[in-house]
Amino acid sequence: MGEFELIGRLFQPLADATRTPGTLLGPGDDCAIQRVPAGQDLVFSVDTLVEGVHFPFQYDAALLGWRALAVAVSDLAAMGAEPVCYTLALTLPEIQEAWVSGLVSGLQEASLAFGIGLAGGDTTRGPLTITVQVHGTVPTGQALRRNGAQPGDLIAVTGPLGGAAAALKWLDSPGDDTNRPFLECYHRPVPQLVLGQKLRGIASAGIDISDGLAADLGHILNASGVAGVVQTDSIPRQYGTVESSLAQALYGGDDYQLCVTVPAQQWNELPETLTRQLYRIGHICEGKGLQLERSDGTRESLAPGTGYDHFRTRG
Amino acid sequence: MGEFELIGRLFQPLADATRTPGTLLGPGDDCAIQRVPAGQDLVFSVDTLVEGVHFPFQYDAALLGWRALAVAVSDLAAMGAEPVCYTLALTLPEIQEAWVSGLVSGLQEASLAFGIGLAGGDTTRGPLTITVQVHGTVPTGQALRRNGAQPGDLIAVTGPLGGAAAALKWLDSPGDDTNRPFLECYHRPVPQLVLGQKLRGIASAGIDISDGLAADLGHILNASGVAGVVQTDSIPRQYGTVESSLAQALYGGDDYQLCVTVPAQQWNELPETLTRQLYRIGHICEGKGLQLERSDGTRESLAPGTGYDHFRTRG
Repeated sequence: MGEFELIGRLFQPLADATRTPGTLLGPGDDCAIQRVPAGQDLVFSVDTLVEGVHFPFQYDAALLGWRALAVAVSDLAAMGAEPVCYTLALTLPEIQEAWVSGLVSGLQEASLAFGIGLAGGDTTRGPLTITVQVHGTVPTGQALRRNGAQPGDLIAVTGPLGGAAAALKWLDSPGDDTNRPFLECYHRPVPQLVLGQKLRGIASAGIDISDGLAADLGHILNASGVAGVVQTDSIPRQYGTVESSLAQALYGGDDYQLCVTVPAQQWNELPETLTRQLYRIGHICEGKGLQLERSDGTRESLAPGTGYDHFRTRG
Repeated sequence: MGEFELIGRLFQPLADATRTPGTLLGPGDDCAIQRVPAGQDLVFSVDTLVEGVHFPFQYDAALLGWRALAVAVSDLAAMGAEPVCYTLALTLPEIQEAWVSGLVSGLQEASLAFGIGLAGGDTTRGPLTITVQVHGTVPTGQALRRNGAQPGDLIAVTGPLGGAAAALKWLDSPGDDTNRPFLECYHRPVPQLVLGQKLRGIASAGIDISDGLAADLGHILNASGVAGVVQTDSIPRQYGTVESSLAQALYGGDDYQLCVTVPAQQWNELPETLTRQLYRIGHICEGKGLQLERSDGTRESLAPGTGYDHFRTRG
């Protein structure tokens, strides 16, 4: 089966089933065509997942489809954007129709869940790699950026952390069943789209936690030119049969919750729908870097850049 | 050196040097932000180049940078679009600063030549792969698509063909110097942006020739539901020390000229700036498939799908 036949036969139904109104032309021409409504700006982000680096060898194709799209859409959530469409650049060692169908089913499930349509792509031969670029819209000037945190702002996260790191530990040494209940956190991340959109006009800065809380909060601090203090006891941890460890919650990647800063005044006026879903974990102050405050009041400074680095292997 | 440091230090100057006015936020946040002017639609296309498949092993990094961007921008040319910005998803086996700098210099040269700015990206560890997604704009409803060819239209190409195929032959067996002068065609493809834009409102269909004239014209015929006849003697061939062969001009990929169809009435009224640069090679008729007409009047039907297939190796 040739490349074009494969694309047409397996991906076109996915594009048809997930198309959103602004996409005037989907896959099959030299370019896709997208209309961006007046008063909206386009936002976009690209993410590559490499076999053996970002997902295990022999990983289930449907899980990979969900995961690849969810991880990319999480960047739209972090900007407070509404998803619109995505492209898929897929590199495959060989064409196995059953595998591609599995990938398409995972992508389709995620596309429909997040309201985002397949608008174009490229299929090439080579080592297994999947690159997804997601496109969304935000009302002009309202995107949540990393550089708006101010001294006095509170730091919050949108959900429990460390579950994906606990799952990876289990995947690395599956003999021990303790971490098995965390697997869903790793296999089926859910981008915080609704919360991200609700936080527009409220949060002063936002990021999604892909590389670990310490690393990603560090990006907000660096971009904003401020320091942060986090109370380690207040970090919500994922509960499986046991809780994820503090180290997993702080340094583990792949959780895809949001970390935001909110001015103290705004925090006091938050609607209940938001307070129920935001975990306050610390505050912003003047200076540089991130400090961890333990329950006994002692503080520890974290070196910048602590966290997951794509140029180190997992394990 | 860690991933984030590399990206910041080597790619940020490229983004700064090439930024275009509509890009409100470039690399460094969760998403880039792009404003699309009223009356314009966004068009975009993604292309992946894999080492050993789409470019030779040990290929020069600066040439790869030019080539990766030029190949992707060619899809904007084929739509008649104006380039705006691009993203770069780069997978590298290891970080070699000199190599990355070479890549950046090739990208920068092409970015400035084509008027397109680096707006975002992702860097990952793995087998060498480069994925470029280009974004452009076209006035609403004026994009050149593949599906508009009508019986009676003339078929034209924007320049000589077969040069890249001749170059690949030389790269495969460099002992024979005959094809060496063609190398520039392969190493430094130039997307036909200006011609593509001038052909808006004139051409009834358009495509860029990336997989060979026969294959790409075939895409226009299929999408438009028509047949085509091409006079083999009228196909312009690239001249090195010898001419590229007819087979190279018909089936060789990587030329990145445009193939367009133009209604006969429009052809007679073309401004001289266009007639000088368009080579008329055949015409559209009712039916299905592509026929080659030789100088003695004999015709040969081409099987559909003839041409370069990314799931076959080169050579």
